[in-house]
Amino acid sequence: MSKLAELKKRLSTVWDLRSTSSLLSWDQQTYMPPQGSGPRAQQMATIDRLAHEILTADETARLLDEAATELNGAADDSDEACLIRVARRHYNRGANVPGSLVEEFSRTCSLAHENWVEAKRSSDFPLFAPHLEKIWELARQIAGARGYQEHPYDALLDEWEPGTTAAEVRAMFDEMRPRLVALVKRIRESGVNLDASALHQRFDLERQIAFAKFMAEEIGYDFNRGRQDISAHPFCTSFSAHDVRITVRYFERFLAPSLFGTLHEAGHALYEQGSPPQFNHTPLRGGASLGIHESQSRWWENLVGRSRPFWKRYFPKLAGFFPEQLHGYTVDQFYRAINRVEPSLIRVEADEVTYNLHIMIRFELELQIMEGKLAIKDVPDAWNDRYSEYLGVSVPNDGSGCLQDIHWAHGILGYFPTYSIGNVVASQLWERMLEDLPNVDELVENGQFKSVLGWLVEHVHSRAKKYLPKELVQKVTGEGIQCGPFLRYLETKFGELYALDR
Amino acid sequence: MSKLAELKKRLSTVWDLRSTSSLLSWDQQTYMPPQGSGPRAQQMATIDRLAHEILTADETARLLDEAATELNGAADDSDEACLIRVARRHYNRGANVPGSLVEEFSRTCSLAHENWVEAKRSSDFPLFAPHLEKIWELARQIAGARGYQEHPYDALLDEWEPGTTAAEVRAMFDEMRPRLVALVKRIRESGVNLDASALHQRFDLERQIAFAKFMAEEIGYDFNRGRQDISAHPFCTSFSAHDVRITVRYFERFLAPSLFGTLHEAGHALYEQGSPPQFNHTPLRGGASLGIHESQSRWWENLVGRSRPFWKRYFPKLAGFFPEQLHGYTVDQFYRAINRVEPSLIRVEADEVTYNLHIMIRFELELQIMEGKLAIKDVPDAWNDRYSEYLGVSVPNDGSGCLQDIHWAHGILGYFPTYSIGNVVASQLWERMLEDLPNVDELVENGQFKSVLGWLVEHVHSRAKKYLPKELVQKVTGEGIQCGPFLRYLETKFGELYALDR
Repeated sequence: MSKLAELKKRLSTVWDLRSTSSLLSWDQQTYMPPQGSGPRAQQMATIDRLAHEILTADETARLLDEAATELNGAADDSDEACLIRVARRHYNRGANVPGSLVEEFSRTCSLAHENWVEAKRSSDFPLFAPHLEKIWELARQIAGARGYQEHPYDALLDEWEPGTTAAEVRAMFDEMRPRLVALVKRIRESGVNLDASALHQRFDLERQIAFAKFMAEEIGYDFNRGRQDISAHPFCTSFSAHDVRITVRYFERFLAPSLFGTLHEAGHALYEQGSPPQFNHTPLRGGASLGIHESQSRWWENLVGRSRPFWKRYFPKLAGFFPEQLHGYTVDQFYRAINRVEPSLIRVEADEVTYNLHIMIRFELELQIMEGKLAIKDVPDAWNDRYSEYLGVSVPNDGSGCLQDIHWAHGILGYFPTYSIGNVVASQLWERMLEDLPNVDELVENGQFKSVLGWLVEHVHSRAKKYLPKELVQKVTGEGIQCGPFLRYLETKFGELYALDR
Repeated sequence: MSKLAELKKRLSTVWDLRSTSSLLSWDQQTYMPPQGSGPRAQQMATIDRLAHEILTADETARLLDEAATELNGAADDSDEACLIRVARRHYNRGANVPGSLVEEFSRTCSLAHENWVEAKRSSDFPLFAPHLEKIWELARQIAGARGYQEHPYDALLDEWEPGTTAAEVRAMFDEMRPRLVALVKRIRESGVNLDASALHQRFDLERQIAFAKFMAEEIGYDFNRGRQDISAHPFCTSFSAHDVRITVRYFERFLAPSLFGTLHEAGHALYEQGSPPQFNHTPLRGGASLGIHESQSRWWENLVGRSRPFWKRYFPKLAGFFPEQLHGYTVDQFYRAINRVEPSLIRVEADEVTYNLHIMIRFELELQIMEGKLAIKDVPDAWNDRYSEYLGVSVPNDGSGCLQDIHWAHGILGYFPTYSIGNVVASQLWERMLEDLPNVDELVENGQFKSVLGWLVEHVHSRAKKYLPKELVQKVTGEGIQCGPFLRYLETKFGELYALDR
């Protein structure tokens, strides 16, 4: 067996363990009986520890070196060279982190999750605070063990957005903030008020589910390699390119979450289903980063799913599912309803304009916690102050405030910036796609998503995890990650919706 | 850390991997999308190989010895002594089986399974034969590597029924066969024909599911620690005492499978839920053997679930779910319908009297294959001959014949006898329980299952896997495994139903 083959076999064990861990998590969030969580936490900790141990063993380092020597001279962007590069990055990130720390972090987060559910329900931050304290303490240890060049936050961010630094994120937000704040102000002062009442009626859940599946299938989600379930927090997960699952949540009195949640998660799923099958069981399978992943989900949710051409086609179909509720509404009224801008408390319900302000708040607090400048007990006040400053809303309780997101309770720290990176990259890709498909509006209006999806598969999906996010964006668009296209997109779209040029 | 604690930590890794493998399998049989099976087979093979490698590593042997020395003097039936004994049995069974053989067997069975589905559907035994050949060839190698004292079949049987030999099974069947054959003959000649038409009507699936869940809950299945789904082949699986799941299959035009399938699988589930929580993540969790497990499922399916007292209470409730279909039937008619005896082709549909004849046929053929006296290509003829001889039915095609069971295709060889051991042990336990709960009929008729279940928990469930099946039966009943009580039970019950004493 060649050294490369030996390396691949070893890595396939690690990535089989990781996809198995993802199934344990999917099951926990969909079908696991209520009392299963204690033992499940231990099972996940065991699987995560084994994956970590096998990945970071000396044997892996030896095989990485030997396989690299064997491959000497292979093209830099060959699958094999990329495999070694990506695997080495994973090895380096984990090699100095003790298995016991990985296991403790995993178990701590599992227990914290139960606790967070209760704390959120009862708006009781002090109940959750000791868990959050422990999670950040362990995260600091992990960041220290991983190492970093500029800022300890980089060591966390790197897990989700390889090669990206806090300084880069800060620069991106510094560019975005004034233009977003100005846009929000102009919208508020426009005197225009978009009516969203169409979405706030009683919508039968079974019909919502049926329409959601119909839409997901329309844009290209393959149910022979996927499924759609219900969970409290919508997500997409995959165990191979042949098994990519999404979850959605449905509200009887609010239609938007199922429509846009489905398009969002199906967008993630299309990326995973587009990963070349030969990358199954390898570190190359899946998306380049969480940011690039988010560019795909936002693409389908917003650039396609909140566009006028899309609803020209699908509003009549939606009205077929809900004739009573939507009778009398026009496509244009519906288009305006789904694009209403309103500064609000809850990130996942935020419109396109204010969304990134929610992210900035989280990023800034995370940085301060990491730097030791913000104590956990002071998080609620810091949170509430910023919501008042950036969004002009006052937070009535911590359940709708700093307890709203699942991320911290899951130990997912340094992750929030990837949402904004996703928004930004989506618009960059869209501008680039327009060069190849200038008639995209017509394609969308006719439900011809094959060429749109095909463009993404060719330029993004088929490259899976071969490149760093910034390398990938460079390859596709010819430039680095830029806010410009996204800000232009917002200003144009909402300029028209709110008649800002008048 | 003590050596025992080190051993426990090591074993918990193995048993966490095993319960994770069970989840991968549960998911495959319930919710996995159609195309997920290829990658899933590899994920399962990886997890199974790792569990095997960690269990059979020299380090495990060393810790077993050291922990045993540390424990010197502990009572033989202490949890710790039992843990070491059981773990050593698992170690010994696996230590000489190469990991490559385990992986090859796992992969062979995964591929065989796909193939068997098609062969069964098209009744094409030659299509399946090469796979079956390979499975038995590998099984012979595994048996050789494991080692045995009397017969190579013992090495397979031991996995499911530790400490039990082919000779003991043969003796059991030799005692049973003449009395069963005689009973079948008397029933056939009785002239009595029980009418089962009540069960063969159209029964709405949603209502069947609702009634099944109601029944499972009534006998004590805890849905906070379990759930009930649909699969092509009903089964029970568990990942801890806090997460024990069953599946049932429903037919719109035949009510029996959902009623008795539910009671059967819930019986297995009660055993797993009764396993002391401190045994989670250890080799002591779960049932003593597959035979003892089957004694629990048969207990609830047959001794309780096909009894008159049970339906005195539940027939009116069932009629409430299906008023149209069951209007005009009496409890006694229903009791007779569910106890109709009829020699048939299909094991899983067999009545209590003929069931074990199906098992004997499989056991005899397995022995002959193992001994090299029966070639795989001759299995269909041998199968059909015995069905004609023992049950008086002629097999129209291999799909309803030797291809009917999933076991061989899954590499589950030497397993069938556990079904008969289960039937036998259930009646032994029942006779013993009558000494403590002589009013059991009254309890069942009043739906007071707490004391019945409590008796099982005290005598069987709480002992989990601490003892060999024969040791457990000895502890509970004061004697070894015996056919007598089971044969007496059948002769009495069906003597009355078929008026054989007239």
